[in-house]
Amino acid sequence: MRRLLTAAAFALAATPALAQSNIALRDMGSFHIGGRIIEITGQPVKEVLFTPGGVPAKVDPNGRYQVEQMYVQYFLPQNKKGKLPLLLWHGGGLSGVTYETKPDGKPGWLNYFIRAGWDTYISDAMERGRSGWTSTFKGEAMALPFNDPWERFRMGPPGSWNDDPAKRVAYPGAQFPAEAYGQFMKQGVPRWVTTDAEIVKAYIELVDKVCPCVVLVHSQSGSFGYQVLEARPDKVKALVAVEPTLGGDKAKIASVKGSPILIVIGDNAKEHPRWKSIRQHSVAYSEAFKAAGGDITMVDLPDVGIKGNSHMMMMDRNSDQIAELIQKWLVSKGLSD
Amino acid sequence: MRRLLTAAAFALAATPALAQSNIALRDMGSFHIGGRIIEITGQPVKEVLFTPGGVPAKVDPNGRYQVEQMYVQYFLPQNKKGKLPLLLWHGGGLSGVTYETKPDGKPGWLNYFIRAGWDTYISDAMERGRSGWTSTFKGEAMALPFNDPWERFRMGPPGSWNDDPAKRVAYPGAQFPAEAYGQFMKQGVPRWVTTDAEIVKAYIELVDKVCPCVVLVHSQSGSFGYQVLEARPDKVKALVAVEPTLGGDKAKIASVKGSPILIVIGDNAKEHPRWKSIRQHSVAYSEAFKAAGGDITMVDLPDVGIKGNSHMMMMDRNSDQIAELIQKWLVSKGLSD
Repeated sequence: MRRLLTAAAFALAATPALAQSNIALRDMGSFHIGGRIIEITGQPVKEVLFTPGGVPAKVDPNGRYQVEQMYVQYFLPQNKKGKLPLLLWHGGGLSGVTYETKPDGKPGWLNYFIRAGWDTYISDAMERGRSGWTSTFKGEAMALPFNDPWERFRMGPPGSWNDDPAKRVAYPGAQFPAEAYGQFMKQGVPRWVTTDAEIVKAYIELVDKVCPCVVLVHSQSGSFGYQVLEARPDKVKALVAVEPTLGGDKAKIASVKGSPILIVIGDNAKEHPRWKSIRQHSVAYSEAFKAAGGDITMVDLPDVGIKGNSHMMMMDRNSDQIAELIQKWLVSKGLSD
Repeated sequence: MRRLLTAAAFALAATPALAQSNIALRDMGSFHIGGRIIEITGQPVKEVLFTPGGVPAKVDPNGRYQVEQMYVQYFLPQNKKGKLPLLLWHGGGLSGVTYETKPDGKPGWLNYFIRAGWDTYISDAMERGRSGWTSTFKGEAMALPFNDPWERFRMGPPGSWNDDPAKRVAYPGAQFPAEAYGQFMKQGVPRWVTTDAEIVKAYIELVDKVCPCVVLVHSQSGSFGYQVLEARPDKVKALVAVEPTLGGDKAKIASVKGSPILIVIGDNAKEHPRWKSIRQHSVAYSEAFKAAGGDITMVDLPDVGIKGNSHMMMMDRNSDQIAELIQKWLVSKGLSD
């Protein structure tokens, strides 16, 4: 009976968010933050054909350029319940689109958290998407091959990829919508592997502008989230780390332990050849954080009955269920009504 | 007296849009459209250092890649008045950010048209922003030097640039907020000059998905707007061309003349060494369109008393005034209540 009641309460709690399709905003907008002006000198003048069939124009690439800024879009709900702004940071090779409409066309976490009453700031990491990029980054930009995320992001187990979608094998009970994998791959943007410092710098400038706040990070931005928390422990009042690739710096826990942390890990991670070691960073950091008296909660979703989630859980069929888990944690920390 | 009445009517008409700060949406979201999967073969395996100080990983760049898709974000107002969706397409070296918050922090045309009741679709052209890009594009990506747009986009007259903002000279009565020039330059993204066909292909796929519609284009996308109108005259029911760099194809007017066209040109264009020839494309196309019995209106803003506007008029101080001119034209064509 108690179990039935819990299920009923859960259904009731979930219903309003699902039924409410309208979004009432007191404002929405965007801005770029950070970056710097650099000077390029000593490069040869190039001939560029701007219009096919036209006359080549001489272009002098030397001069001053704006580089390394970051794009941020914000949505401020009329029915504000979150006590601080909520910042959504995406993972590697992706952009803020991660949190928008899911590849299967259903509403993502951006709409969920706006409807839950959070002033929500969604950004494209320096170098990606609407932040722009510059040829002055060191090294080459990389793109993910079409097949790569299927196994690496745990949509299917190792060895399950097949170029033929009909022969592609998902994990049993997988929540990622396999039929929308192609749409997910359209969200990818090239990334460099040499720009972490500049990415973190722009995030810190964002935090200095709009925080105190809650920061929600995913995958590669887990590392950025911890670095920014360590740089601005007075501004990042809580951190939600969704499958972060790293933990924070254990040597700096004393100065950040005033901010509660929630770590969320999906299904099939504990035994996965790659993810078990990635997950271990979070286990080790959680233990150290707790030992220092900090408030940290690490949730392996299958352990609380939420099964089948991939690394891209904000795009999985049950993404609202995970958003609700995060929302309840934020409410429990007094960060939202 | 008549003039006074007109001024009073204008003031009254403008007030509600300015006073209304809330945005009520029935939905918002995003998607990627178009693109294709390519195969890269015969490239050497590379060593890549993913984490500074870490161990280099071998990366095989060969494989299948998703390329040439386009990002689209949409906002559907509760108080819908536009009879068709409105698509906002940006100019060269920029992204959909063009129409969002202006560099001076004030609301841009995106918010204006949502509040005016249009289902509004804002996109990043294939290759730019959240559409991603690929190293398989021909040629090199180009970025605009920091000084370049100041004169080229007619914020100041030829020869008026100075690296020192205090010594930079704007046109007399210029509407572009000179103090926000640096913020504007942060909106820039690299562009190729070899990808027009792929850009147009993705726009056509968008039009096939969400139209019949009204398309609003700016600068470089003027050319794309005309090409898509010519490819889909049954879907593009009206075209608003803001300082298009080209006109349409005169040989194809017979098949597109059922769609009314509004061309808007800012100030200081008629005598400008570069813009007078760009503007001439619109003059010539307008004459041919009219001669064929088509409905085309070309507005030089200073001729209707709207002065000081740059090429980036959607970011100028009086951007609402120009949006209102466009809105009234759309209403006059029966496209909005």
